[in-house]
Amino acid sequence: MFVNLIDILGTIAFAISGVMVALNKKLDLFGILIIAFVTSTGGGTLRDVLLGVRPIFWLTDTNTVYIIIATTAIAIIFRKYLKMVSKSLVLFDTIGIGFYTIAGIEKSLLVNLDPVICVAIGTISACFGGVIRDILCRRIPVIFKKEVYATACILGGVSFFALRMVAPESKWLSIVPILVVILVRIAAVRYKLTLPSLYKQKGPSF
Amino acid sequence: MFVNLIDILGTIAFAISGVMVALNKKLDLFGILIIAFVTSTGGGTLRDVLLGVRPIFWLTDTNTVYIIIATTAIAIIFRKYLKMVSKSLVLFDTIGIGFYTIAGIEKSLLVNLDPVICVAIGTISACFGGVIRDILCRRIPVIFKKEVYATACILGGVSFFALRMVAPESKWLSIVPILVVILVRIAAVRYKLTLPSLYKQKGPSF
Amino acid sequence: MFVNLIDILGTIAFAISGVMVALNKKLDLFGILIIAFVTSTGGGTLRDVLLGVRPIFWLTDTNTVYIIIATTAIAIIFRKYLKMVSKSLVLFDTIGIGFYTIAGIEKSLLVNLDPVICVAIGTISACFGGVIRDILCRRIPVIFKKEVYATACILGGVSFFALRMVAPESKWLSIVPILVVILVRIAAVRYKLTLPSLYKQKGPSF
Repeated sequence: MFVNLIDILGTIAFAISGVMVALNKKLDLFGILIIAFVTSTGGGTLRDVLLGVRPIFWLTDTNTVYIIIATTAIAIIFRKYLKMVSKSLVLFDTIGIGFYTIAGIEKSLLVNLDPVICVAIGTISACFGGVIRDILCRRIPVIFKKEVYATACILGGVSFFALRMVAPESKWLSIVPILVVILVRIAAVRYKLTLPSLYKQKGPSF
Repeated sequence: MFVNLIDILGTIAFAISGVMVALNKKLDLFGILIIAFVTSTGGGTLRDVLLGVRPIFWLTDTNTVYIIIATTAIAIIFRKYLKMVSKSLVLFDTIGIGFYTIAGIEKSLLVNLDPVICVAIGTISACFGGVIRDILCRRIPVIFKKEVYATACILGGVSFFALRMVAPESKWLSIVPILVVILVRIAAVRYKLTLPSLYKQKGPSF
Repeated sequence: MFVNLIDILGTIAFAISGVMVALNKKLDLFGILIIAFVTSTGGGTLRDVLLGVRPIFWLTDTNTVYIIIATTAIAIIFRKYLKMVSKSLVLFDTIGIGFYTIAGIEKSLLVNLDPVICVAIGTISACFGGVIRDILCRRIPVIFKKEVYATACILGGVSFFALRMVAPESKWLSIVPILVVILVRIAAVRYKLTLPSLYKQKGPSF
């Protein structure tokens, strides 16, 4: 139930981030809906395609689709207020990538994959919805900006397997790594932490 | 047989639209062929991948591949005349999205999906060949321009399920919704109809 | 064993080409790793998804993932020397597309596809890792530049089926077509061969 709530929060957060990017690009109503949909479901769809899981999660979970449609409608109506809440949006988005990372790892474990592969799948699940959104909207993909984004997912994934070695039966096995993703990302945003730079001048040259 | 003919027309129309974009970007011969191929098969491929349908339709339907190769060759040879027929191309393209929308819905019904999901899959089938073409050629994806494109597909899909409630056994169940897509799109192009704008200035800001 | 060695060389070459593009775009460490990973595995992943082969090759072949991580680390450490070896990189990359073309054809034959489809799958396997890399990094996709790239793959694929008609049991059936891809590509780079132009002015207009 608690995980379900996080799942719904993640879906809503990703949908809203899609609406914000699409509004910024002045798309029309259905364009906005498509971008919201792709942002919310893209990472999980890629995960299910890679793992060969059938059906893709949103094909039979109609609630996800209704939540995205409702979120898009509400976000469009209250679009003037979206910027005012953009800080809570970073929080929602962060909850979203935290949840998707661990959900991706757990789905990968069901088909008995190596931990390194599981972390790769978890990170892809979390990040590629946003990547597809940005490519469709011709923006610089968010994970390639100088932000701790994929890094937070990878660290969360590593903490999952560390905790699993120590306490394989713990009921915290899902919750703690999600918190790790969230804390790493929020600490990075708050204190402007970045990975050590390989370059003399700053910022990506897109 | 009639549906088969529409299928072939749709494949040809999409291939020609791919050739036109690729010529505009001055790609070489094989670049043009690849874009024509991706435009024609991209939406249906994504549909089959999402639905888990195996094999992907063009893997065993070699005719589709030969039709695309032949269309590309003919379109390149007569490339000077393509602009003169560009109005009939909008018609072909529209027939194409009409057919793909309903074919996507019918394939989705075979795996017992919810009507809302079926319409989503039908719209994706119809639109994403063009989206992939535009991303590969670094153009603004056509469905995000101010044109009634995805909207026509969605209305066609809704009409399919409305008709199916009234007359589930009707032999018109495939044909009428295809006509709805075509008429909506042609009326929109003819009378320059767009969705109500959310923005003060006009046009997408790509 | 010999084929395995070529496979590893191809993976390394593609990973290095990913690192070079990512460094050029000034991505951070994990951005570089993701691009190296996508370049190396993208074409084969698309091949396995299209063919419905499960699991996707790198999910259970953990070595591929470790090779990519190690290659990325070494390439980043010695990044100053990468430009000096860029000619051998063209060679590696060419070995890579040669191998992937034939591996794609052989995997397609296992599911009894038509030769034309097999060559299409082989060419997609070889080329789309680089296409995805270039789209994520917002570059002009390499296969659309005026270079004999996809053409080399297609000619290699045709030579495979020509040789197979003459000598279906030959142990050279894998090796010779790989050499054809490599020789065509290297001859094209060396003598600046291109396909006949359809346009008056030169070069793609991206």
